[in-house]
Amino acid sequence: MSSSSAAPAAKPPMRDALVEAAFRLFLERGYEHTTVDDIVALAGVGRRSFFRYFPSKEDVVFPDHERCLADMTAFLAASGEEHEPVRRVCDAARMVLLMYAENPTFSVQRYRLTKRVPGLRAYELSVVWRYERALAEYLRGRFAGRPDGTLRADVVAAAVVAAHNNALRSWLRSDGEGDAGTAVDHALGFVQRAFGRPAQPPVRAVHLLPPADAAEGRPDDVVVLVSRRDTPVWRVVQEWEAALGRA
Amino acid sequence: MSSSSAAPAAKPPMRDALVEAAFRLFLERGYEHTTVDDIVALAGVGRRSFFRYFPSKEDVVFPDHERCLADMTAFLAASGEEHEPVRRVCDAARMVLLMYAENPTFSVQRYRLTKRVPGLRAYELSVVWRYERALAEYLRGRFAGRPDGTLRADVVAAAVVAAHNNALRSWLRSDGEGDAGTAVDHALGFVQRAFGRPAQPPVRAVHLLPPADAAEGRPDDVVVLVSRRDTPVWRVVQEWEAALGRA
Repeated sequence: MSSSSAAPAAKPPMRDALVEAAFRLFLERGYEHTTVDDIVALAGVGRRSFFRYFPSKEDVVFPDHERCLADMTAFLAASGEEHEPVRRVCDAARMVLLMYAENPTFSVQRYRLTKRVPGLRAYELSVVWRYERALAEYLRGRFAGRPDGTLRADVVAAAVVAAHNNALRSWLRSDGEGDAGTAVDHALGFVQRAFGRPAQPPVRAVHLLPPADAAEGRPDDVVVLVSRRDTPVWRVVQEWEAALGRA
Repeated sequence: MSSSSAAPAAKPPMRDALVEAAFRLFLERGYEHTTVDDIVALAGVGRRSFFRYFPSKEDVVFPDHERCLADMTAFLAASGEEHEPVRRVCDAARMVLLMYAENPTFSVQRYRLTKRVPGLRAYELSVVWRYERALAEYLRGRFAGRPDGTLRADVVAAAVVAAHNNALRSWLRSDGEGDAGTAVDHALGFVQRAFGRPAQPPVRAVHLLPPADAAEGRPDDVVVLVSRRDTPVWRVVQEWEAALGRA
């Protein structure tokens, strides 16, 4: 069978062609020495096409963040009372990982490029900040009326982003080898254990000091904590600390 | 007594005069419409003096971050094994608050300016990132060899920065009224309760299910947790979750 009778290879849309051309040039001659004119020449399109898709040269390096941010915001907006909020923002953060994992080669190339170009580092920080704010805004809504609601929201959002990025960067540094999903799940589980499952059921902790050593508070004295199954972690921690006089 | 016989008012050093002139112009005509030439003209010095102190116009907006970053790094480098690491990074973060609280009027003006000028927002994000990395690097050293050491370091650093900034921003939004120190202490206490005091002493949790209800895991069944006094929070949480089959 001649190749001419085969179905033609799907032509990548113009946007993808621009990203591909841009990265070929960035890798060949460096980000700073590549102009938008160079990119459109290689992609075989006009300047106006470039700016229809990307506001600036920086944006072509991160072509999918706007879509991912929009998807994440929609996902959080579609949440209900039945969703445990910390778990929900962890699930939202996984959407960013999926975007990176869709195309490991491209993600690893971009990671290396971003490390070398200060302007791209700054751009990336602003993107990370927008993800963090999206998570924090959602959590502020869910924690509204709770003591320290905005504090908890901001801290949990920052912790989720830091955990996600810790696992993502390890994966990128290892050239996209291994299972990024498992690493991110593990990292997010760490945050969920620290902050997850809020509510206020009863919990009671008692600090048992051997009488003779009461004044010294020796490390081998004991705390007995009795709690209902559905007690949230933070209440257990609070009671535990209070029993030790640390709260 | 004539004013000429009084001791002359201490003349602010040239650097302070440049910051003062810059902010007067930023507030009068806007950040974008103020040039370095305008600033040096008002301060009565040459362009070269400006660039001796500040690499760019952006840097004059944040004149003390470099010093504060250097102080923080030195403070962390001078830490010993006797310093509980999470408490230590909280103390390091308080150095940033002190810088802001030294001059509330200036800090509030800058906060408003930064909110309006995207370039300054980006600059501020990069500064915050450098503080966070300084804290994380210290914690990575302290948590080295522990399971999830770098993950814990990154998450705690991000949580500390988020808590600090939550309290700092509230204070700045209230025009510098109230006690910023108390608010920041409260916010950092929240993070310390979630992550503080690491070590690995024994802890044991038992999940008591009423036999008849074992299959249902009713919320009123009970967990009894017995731990030594010096058990870190995270171990208590881990055992507590494991007892419930959640870990």
